[in-house]
Amino acid sequence: MGDRLAIVGGDAAGMSAATNAHRRDAGLEVVAFERGEFTSYSACGIPYYVGGLVGDVDDLVARSPERHRANGIDVRTGTAVVGIDLDRRELALAGGRAEPFDRLVIATGACAVAPPVPGAEATDPARTLDAAARLRRQVEGGGEDAVVVGAGYIGLEMAEALVMRGLHVALVERADEVFPALDADMGARVREAAEGIGIEVHTSTSLEEVLVGDAGQPRGVRTTAGELPARHVILAMGVQPDVELAAAAGLRTGPTGALAVDDRQRCAGADGVWAAGDCVESRHRLLDRPVNVQLGTHANKQGRIAGHNAAGGDLAFPGVIGTAISRLCRREVALTGLTEAQAAEAGFDAYAETIETSARAGYFPGNGPVWVKLVAERGSGRVLGAQIVGAETAAKRIDTLAMAVWTGMAVDELQWVDLGYAPPVSGVLDPVLVAARVAAKRL
Amino acid sequence: MGDRLAIVGGDAAGMSAATNAHRRDAGLEVVAFERGEFTSYSACGIPYYVGGLVGDVDDLVARSPERHRANGIDVRTGTAVVGIDLDRRELALAGGRAEPFDRLVIATGACAVAPPVPGAEATDPARTLDAAARLRRQVEGGGEDAVVVGAGYIGLEMAEALVMRGLHVALVERADEVFPALDADMGARVREAAEGIGIEVHTSTSLEEVLVGDAGQPRGVRTTAGELPARHVILAMGVQPDVELAAAAGLRTGPTGALAVDDRQRCAGADGVWAAGDCVESRHRLLDRPVNVQLGTHANKQGRIAGHNAAGGDLAFPGVIGTAISRLCRREVALTGLTEAQAAEAGFDAYAETIETSARAGYFPGNGPVWVKLVAERGSGRVLGAQIVGAETAAKRIDTLAMAVWTGMAVDELQWVDLGYAPPVSGVLDPVLVAARVAAKRL
Repeated sequence: MGDRLAIVGGDAAGMSAATNAHRRDAGLEVVAFERGEFTSYSACGIPYYVGGLVGDVDDLVARSPERHRANGIDVRTGTAVVGIDLDRRELALAGGRAEPFDRLVIATGACAVAPPVPGAEATDPARTLDAAARLRRQVEGGGEDAVVVGAGYIGLEMAEALVMRGLHVALVERADEVFPALDADMGARVREAAEGIGIEVHTSTSLEEVLVGDAGQPRGVRTTAGELPARHVILAMGVQPDVELAAAAGLRTGPTGALAVDDRQRCAGADGVWAAGDCVESRHRLLDRPVNVQLGTHANKQGRIAGHNAAGGDLAFPGVIGTAISRLCRREVALTGLTEAQAAEAGFDAYAETIETSARAGYFPGNGPVWVKLVAERGSGRVLGAQIVGAETAAKRIDTLAMAVWTGMAVDELQWVDLGYAPPVSGVLDPVLVAARVAAKRL
Repeated sequence: MGDRLAIVGGDAAGMSAATNAHRRDAGLEVVAFERGEFTSYSACGIPYYVGGLVGDVDDLVARSPERHRANGIDVRTGTAVVGIDLDRRELALAGGRAEPFDRLVIATGACAVAPPVPGAEATDPARTLDAAARLRRQVEGGGEDAVVVGAGYIGLEMAEALVMRGLHVALVERADEVFPALDADMGARVREAAEGIGIEVHTSTSLEEVLVGDAGQPRGVRTTAGELPARHVILAMGVQPDVELAAAAGLRTGPTGALAVDDRQRCAGADGVWAAGDCVESRHRLLDRPVNVQLGTHANKQGRIAGHNAAGGDLAFPGVIGTAISRLCRREVALTGLTEAQAAEAGFDAYAETIETSARAGYFPGNGPVWVKLVAERGSGRVLGAQIVGAETAAKRIDTLAMAVWTGMAVDELQWVDLGYAPPVSGVLDPVLVAARVAAKRL
């Protein structure tokens, strides 16, 4: 008779933990509690579903509860965990029932940041599949006005989705450029793209109030730059780790507000408790400090580690370097490592070079521009970070640069690496090589 | 009054050498001799021009002689060099004139391998823009039969181009699978793609004769598997370094038959002579022996080094790892490092794992399958090579794997690297990570 492993949260991290725990030790009883009705769904796919690129909400579910059950995992959907008692090794469920556990994985994810402005409660953050389906039904007719607040990648993806539905969209961002994860000079390329598909962009503009109509539905926003009336208001002002339950149980959070874990995904100061995904801190390999990043790929990897280790294994998560990628307003956008601003703030003696070239051979159909900004350390030439904005196929090159950042390669080595060339996919020198060459010259 | 640098060959390597020599030392007189009428053209683009994806032959010219001249380089097109006298420092030109030089860069490229079979001389290898334009005019009408001999990347690209023109195409390859640069199990995925667009594939079949009609034009081929009548016969049986001129001048060739150069692109045993591009040997970093690779990206880099060094600089070429990429029959194909067969032959204790996953998120429009084969060293887990076949966007990931091969990264590290994820460009775990994970498990 084996132990019982309970998992709180049935999305990427939780179900990856469940699957890997069961795979390592089939004698372990694995039970996962999910308050919603779906497991393993792609929140990242929601904007594409709202915009209509993805037809059916079920398409976003990578693995249904039934399939998990068929794989030997006891999944309890519609079952909210409301309390964790680490001493009694018990979960309290909504409705009053209790469930025992020997080992525990916490994968409670993240929740939308609710801005402290009047009327915010009248909006619906569309983070769940149910909410996404509601929003899609509301906007399917097109023609109306929408305001999206927050020009991070979710805000930009949602704004594009609504444009695809035929809405007129205003995008409000309090920073002085859209997509503030990039340096502003690269963000300006994303703004061009947003404006190019008809989005009305308001930067350096803060939300002050969501205006609410008589029936309780939003009718626009009041901002530091005036009122923007709109039938639909989408707040995309970031997410925060959902640690309420874990913190109430006495588990430690770190400086980012997310759960503090070691590289085995063990919760600090608690035996037999692991955590993974959007709710935990990860070590940033360049900054050498904890960060909280919400991304499916980390959730998947950390969930695997948490589950594997909870079942007696010993895998370690080597940290993150901030790689992210998106397709925004028909342009591809990616970053890895540190931006120029981050590098300076972190005390690196860094310099940056930006090049413009083409994503495919100049004559090849579908070719378009690509900008690569490289951030390198003065003296050593070590690649500290990179940003890419460009036409289709441009962005996945960020992985090559992520490898350079990960391994600490210098630009004068990078410029000669044997990367692939063929007219449909690159110029004779890949944009990565062109950027490295320019950065190496300056060295 | 500066020295005179002569360059033999006005394509990628030669003009890259000219440009970089002039850039480094504007006092150096740089004169480039090109026997054809074009400079800096993309031979790699020829199949796309024949197939009609590229509209105009001039589109394939990256930089015209006029533009080179405007940049301070004396380009002599239509000027064939027929002899090099290293002692007298003189080039002999067709027609009897001589041209002096102080320093010399040889960039004579490659020429098609003419198979030793009767009738071969009746075919036209379509390596030059003029020949490509002739071929395009001949096939524009569609409807006829064509035979392409050789299923390397040029043969496959040409076969696809002819299918796009509405021809019925038979493809003949003497190896037992198409695209023999790949292991046969991965080549089989390319064959599927070729057959999927209607190409009639004959493997393990050798050319014995090009059948020639009364008017001297080809009328098909005779092979070890019988006759294949066809209005058009394209021989794409590989290219060989064009070293006739250099060898006659006493310059040394290496074991591959290409010119022996050191990592500064200096010709072995000759002072003030550099060589670059398809006509030279490059050091393979894994095999640690010279190889001869014809690829625009190497030509560009080596040309830069040769020109820079000929103008007094000191750049070094760090070698190649065999990265190549192509789009073949609507499937993308790429490789880097060693295949399983090459690794075994080179004496590595290697193993291989192949995974199948999807190029984008499973639900994303345009998604399709991708296969990644990873070759790793037993024990250390070091990535020795990789092969990718798959749907659009699949292949450029080879660069990530090239970085792993280049840096000697092991699969158990690679599986955790922070690579980009977003539904339009990858599943939650990039195919590279999935492959590394599977290979690490086996370790």
